[in-house]
Amino acid sequence: MPDPAATVMRGEIGEIPAAIEALLAEGRARAHGAAAAIRRAAPRWLSIVARGTSDNAAVYARYLVETHLGIPSGLAAPSVTTIYGRSLAWRGGMVLAISQSGQSPDVVGVITDARRAGALTVAVTNEPSSPLGDAAEVVLPCGAGIERAVPATKTYVAELAVVAQLVAALEPASDLAAALPRLPAALRASHEAGVGWLATDEGAPSAVVAELAASDRCLVVSRGFNYATALELALKLQETTGLFADAYSAADLQHGPLAIAGPGVPVLAIRADGPGGIATDEAIAAVTARGAHPWVIDSGSGFGSRRLAVRQALPEALTPLLYIVPGYLLVDGVARARGVSPDLPVGLTKVTRTR
Amino acid sequence: MPDPAATVMRGEIGEIPAAIEALLAEGRARAHGAAAAIRRAAPRWLSIVARGTSDNAAVYARYLVETHLGIPSGLAAPSVTTIYGRSLAWRGGMVLAISQSGQSPDVVGVITDARRAGALTVAVTNEPSSPLGDAAEVVLPCGAGIERAVPATKTYVAELAVVAQLVAALEPASDLAAALPRLPAALRASHEAGVGWLATDEGAPSAVVAELAASDRCLVVSRGFNYATALELALKLQETTGLFADAYSAADLQHGPLAIAGPGVPVLAIRADGPGGIATDEAIAAVTARGAHPWVIDSGSGFGSRRLAVRQALPEALTPLLYIVPGYLLVDGVARARGVSPDLPVGLTKVTRTR
Repeated sequence: MPDPAATVMRGEIGEIPAAIEALLAEGRARAHGAAAAIRRAAPRWLSIVARGTSDNAAVYARYLVETHLGIPSGLAAPSVTTIYGRSLAWRGGMVLAISQSGQSPDVVGVITDARRAGALTVAVTNEPSSPLGDAAEVVLPCGAGIERAVPATKTYVAELAVVAQLVAALEPASDLAAALPRLPAALRASHEAGVGWLATDEGAPSAVVAELAASDRCLVVSRGFNYATALELALKLQETTGLFADAYSAADLQHGPLAIAGPGVPVLAIRADGPGGIATDEAIAAVTARGAHPWVIDSGSGFGSRRLAVRQALPEALTPLLYIVPGYLLVDGVARARGVSPDLPVGLTKVTRTR
Repeated sequence: MPDPAATVMRGEIGEIPAAIEALLAEGRARAHGAAAAIRRAAPRWLSIVARGTSDNAAVYARYLVETHLGIPSGLAAPSVTTIYGRSLAWRGGMVLAISQSGQSPDVVGVITDARRAGALTVAVTNEPSSPLGDAAEVVLPCGAGIERAVPATKTYVAELAVVAQLVAALEPASDLAAALPRLPAALRASHEAGVGWLATDEGAPSAVVAELAASDRCLVVSRGFNYATALELALKLQETTGLFADAYSAADLQHGPLAIAGPGVPVLAIRADGPGGIATDEAIAAVTARGAHPWVIDSGSGFGSRRLAVRQALPEALTPLLYIVPGYLLVDGVARARGVSPDLPVGLTKVTRTR
């Protein structure tokens, strides 16, 4: 069993606030350059291509772009390009690729096809010197430094921050743009909150860690901006612990998957203050009615004993960055309580090349 | 325990071939009318809005439209419209709603916003006299008749058939258009194949039914067109049996979720003949390497003992209609083997109204 205090993943989670602080300083000019390119191209729609963890960043990006810029957005299906060999009529649109490594051939394939067809292509990646960095017209580096643990944590938050900085550059008078400078301090506070979730005052695993560690299934629910957080938390629980963790939006849950909720199935609900949080209450009520006792990650303004509080100092649109950080600590804690190393999940590799 | 031979769901699955035969005859002129409207509007991109089962039909629609028409497509996030109250710049695009009941306020809300903004709006619904039917500019009825069981089966296949008929009308010289008349006979053959999967010669539950009935988790994998089939099969297993059934594309699986595969977790792989089927082999190999023994639903041209054959008389683009029918019979069989009624899943309703 790994030393509880020394997983690489936990160390990298701790590096997130400083990494984002540096990114916001260094990335500002690049974001404004990309914003100028987007204003010139005036895309009618946005298609986002990503895999794995970055696919969850893509979900965040689509909500942020639609709610703040009003540009219809969606996620690409790379297999149309790479498996079926079909070129699409991308002209008039923008294609955004998000990839930590910049290596996956399917992501690069879509960007190459889209650029050839005349779309504006933008890449968000931690590796600007990569096939993806070469393929896209505009490249926005994440600047998260080296990430050694297989589960991506600081690169995910950096991807979100790059997207937020880009949208803020396109909408400089927004609440989002005004709040961005407060992000690093808020990330430090939310990291500290997460450390407090993990253990009792006596040093034993906390009730939430113990409950998840003892289970083989779990549900993660949210809605709106933090649907991305639910997806990312579920994916990390899968990757690091083998738990069957499923994420649903509060609306999707009610169209069928609610049937898998019940007394024996732990539920995590992510409930920021804001419209998405209010809509998440429906999912909390629905799983409670089926006998579940959800853990609610919220701003601390709610009530009930099964709550995990993260002070919310920012608009709802930025809370996915705040809420995933203690979520990652929770994942690390559950993996350690199960006696597995979160750093090297069985059967997975850091760079996954799918076509 | 319900009478094994008499579930409403199983009766409705049996009605699918005749329902599709009638739809293809009656829907032809309507599809050509809708195709003419689409040609006039010449949309630059397509956004599809749907929930639950219809969301899986939306996944099929996006693959069919992109591979056959080359129009970039994606799935809408209704909460942007309904929770955050943001109007999008839909002009120049097309928004397709798919809904069995035509009732869900979020689906109607997106179509209303899109039509107001100047997009071409098209609705595929089994209830043309519904809020959705009133809201959309072009309405394509599914004509599946009354569906009494809560889990939608024949309306799902009818939604796929309406979409296929529309794409065939837009591309009359395609293999898809040429193959469409052969669909009803192929559906009858695949229904017959599925009946044969359910029981041994002695009348006991077959090995696949017994294995799924005894499990509390399962994985369903595919890629390309039949990714929709995997999603739909997993959703129906959830709805009717409470099984934690998760669907992944073969590519997404390798970006993390593969960690939940293992010796104790049943796997269903849907592998049509064609590029999507070949790409699914990677997922079959990956889960096998982790100790799983996948059941492979294929055309019968493969090999191995854990195979469920469906004769493939049609191009890969139409196999999602063929493969889901025996899949539904399998779901019905698993529910019955677990002693639950597939007709009335606990906690779910036929018409789900989410905002």
